[in-house]
Order: sequence, then structure tokens, then C-alpha cells
Amino acid sequence: MKTRDRILAAALELFNLQGERKVTTNHIAAHLGMSPGNLYYHFKNKQEIIYELFLIYEATVDSNLDVPTERKLTIEDKLNYLQKVFQGLWEFRFIHRDMEHLLLGEERLHTRYRAFFRRCQLKTEAIYQGLHDANIIQINRRDLEGLALNTWIVVTSWYSFLQCNLLLDVNENITQDMLKGGIYQIFQLERPYLSDEYRGRVEAMQEAFIPKPEWLTPPQTT
Amino acid sequence: MKTRDRILAAALELFNLQGERKVTTNHIAAHLGMSPGNLYYHFKNKQEIIYELFLIYEATVDSNLDVPTERKLTIEDKLNYLQKVFQGLWEFRFIHRDMEHLLLGEERLHTRYRAFFRRCQLKTEAIYQGLHDANIIQINRRDLEGLALNTWIVVTSWYSFLQCNLLLDVNENITQDMLKGGIYQIFQLERPYLSDEYRGRVEAMQEAFIPKPEWLTPPQTT
Repeated sequence: MKTRDRILAAALELFNLQGERKVTTNHIAAHLGMSPGNLYYHFKNKQEIIYELFLIYEATVDSNLDVPTERKLTIEDKLNYLQKVFQGLWEFRFIHRDMEHLLLGEERLHTRYRAFFRRCQLKTEAIYQGLHDANIIQINRRDLEGLALNTWIVVTSWYSFLQCNLLLDVNENITQDMLKGGIYQIFQLERPYLSDEYRGRVEAMQEAFIPKPEWLTPPQTT
Repeated sequence: MKTRDRILAAALELFNLQGERKVTTNHIAAHLGMSPGNLYYHFKNKQEIIYELFLIYEATVDSNLDVPTERKLTIEDKLNYLQKVFQGLWEFRFIHRDMEHLLLGEERLHTRYRAFFRRCQLKTEAIYQGLHDANIIQINRRDLEGLALNTWIVVTSWYSFLQCNLLLDVNENITQDMLKGGIYQIFQLERPYLSDEYRGRVEAMQEAFIPKPEWLTPPQTT
């Protein structure tokens, strides 16, 4: 593995575990048993590392949201999209953990993120249109656009929701399982639009993601 | 106006305009032409001011979400709930602007916020149940709970959504009008459950909140 990639992998691991704000380039270098000078040779500061990691995340999401042109979408595609999106959220969770802090004041990253959002909206709309064309959901264009926007908001806010509303300030407590609980809420957004033909099968899929009660009512808040 | 209340009012104004993180107790004292000592006499630190402001916000929301027991809900109630909720979001927008930063590491506030969330969920579920009982929406219990949770997520994430996805790092650019655009997205969440009896009237209500296109496609991202 190239030094540059080792730095990115270590930074991602530390950002996810401790939060980007608490991790310095010195921590990353120390974690790799590398001199700060060697790290600076590859990245001139932490912002460069964050930007590079975002580009990797962005490319992953972009490819995950592609819609096949040669065939109709299936309900397995629908589940697959959700699984990949939430897998990406988990692997790059530091991005959604403290987003204002990450974006505001970082003009280059913020501008790139806004364009990423617009692109994701168009791709999400294309997916919902594909599900409509396959008669998995039945939805008109305007509702489709509103649904796509609410989908973006719930997906990108889910990690923050878990942090602020469910857990104590021990971010390591957020498990991938809990993060996947967000998949249930996305199914819930789409559920009213399911066609009679597919409703039963899609609702059965959703069952697998029912949030565990203790997530929504942790002892300390009841 | 009592000094204590003047301090809270000034803090709220500065937090909303500049972001809580950028405002110190000295800024607040200076803004009031008051000595830091005088401010400390009333609040021993910024956390105390933030906590006090949160208690005011919490009390406002709690009363805004009450469901009348002596009569059925009307579609005017529904609109009224949304307008009050988004009015509160605007008046205390600093809370939703950088929530992780505000809550994490502030155990007392975080614990209180989690209990607030649980209470709001129950009240939101009661409102949706009331709309169901008045035959404004038709929804089963499980969908109602999922809808209430998505409603919370979209409402509490809307300010952050505007900041991260639409605007440059000039928070003053977020107008009350843009914030109210979130009302449209909440209507959108409920829309599939509208009864035939009320669908037309409620959809007409939603029209008033259609987001202006330039909000979702600012020049710099297209």
C-alpha cells in the first residue's frame, strides 16, 4: 500500500473513531509511526486529507447510485441501493457526524459538496423514476421530487440524529447496526407509494430493518 | 426588562446571527454595554446561558405541540402546528445550526435534549393520531410512528440542510422565508396519507410553501 493511501486509510479510521475535530495530522503520523515531515510531504495539511477522503466518498456514492439503462429496476435493486448508501455512510461517518463544522469555512469542500448534493438528487430522482417505471412504486413527478429531497435529508441526518437524540457522548456507541436502522426510515418514506403488486414483498424487506426499541428509548431518556 | 432577561435576549440574538461558537460571554457583555463581571453575576458561564435559552425553547415547543382534548383537529390546526414549529426553529436557530457541537460534551443539556426528543415524538404522534381521528389523514399506527420520526428528522435537520447544501458560508443568508420552505417538505411527508375528503384543501395549503427554485439550485452549484 502506497504511503499516501496508508495516510488516507489511517486518517479515515481516526476521524471515524474520534471525530475529525479531535484528530491532528500529528496524531495520524504517530498512528502510522511516521514523522510529521513525511506526512506533510504527501499532504500539506489536514484539510487536504479531508478533501481527498471526500473525493473518494463522492466517487463511491456516484457509482452506487447509477441506474441500469438496459433493464428495469427490481426490488432487489432498491434494497441494494439502500444497503450501499448506508454502508458508505458508515465507512465515511465522520463526514456526517459534524457536517457544519466540516463544510462551513472550507469553501472548496463546501462548493464541491453542494454540487454533489445536486447530483445525488438527480440520481435519486432517476432511481425513484425507475422504480415507478417498473411499477414498484406509483408516484407523480412532483411527489417524486419531494420524496427524493426528504430521502436525502433523512439519509444525511441519520448519523447526527442518532448522536443527538439517542446516545450519550460516546460516539463509538453508534454501531453499524444502529446506522442501518436508518434504512427502515427510508422504506417508510417510500412505503405509501408502493404498488399493490409489490407492496407485500417490499414491506417484508422492510421488516428486516425494524429499529430495536432500545435505540429509540435508551434507558437514560425514559 | 430585567438584566438577566436582557442578557438572554442579547445572547440569543448574537448566537443566531454569528453562531454560538463564535460568541463569547465578553461579546455578549460588550453588546449590552455591561461589564463581564456584571454578566457573570447572572450567569457563571456561556453554558449556563445556552442551557437557559434551551429551557425557554423547550417550553415554547412543548406548549406549541399540545393537542386540544375538547374538540377534533382541523386542517387549520395542522397548518398552525407547522407554522409555530418553524417559527420556533427560526427564533432559536442557533440550536439547530451546529447541534452536535452544542450537545456533545454538554452532558446536562444532551440528557435534557434526548428527553425533549422523546416527548416531542409522543406529542407529534398524538397530533397525527388526532388528524387521523378527524379523518384528515388515514394512517395505521406503525406508519404513524415512522411518519412522526421522519417528521422530527426533517424539521430538526432543515436548517443544517440549508446551510450545508444550498448556501455559501454566510449564515445570515438563510432567511426566515427559506427556513419556512421546510414546511413544504413536512406537508410532503404527510401528503400520501391525506383522506380524499381533505386532500384538495390540504394540497392547496401546501402550495403556499413551494420552495423557490433558486433555493434548491443556487447559481454557484449549477
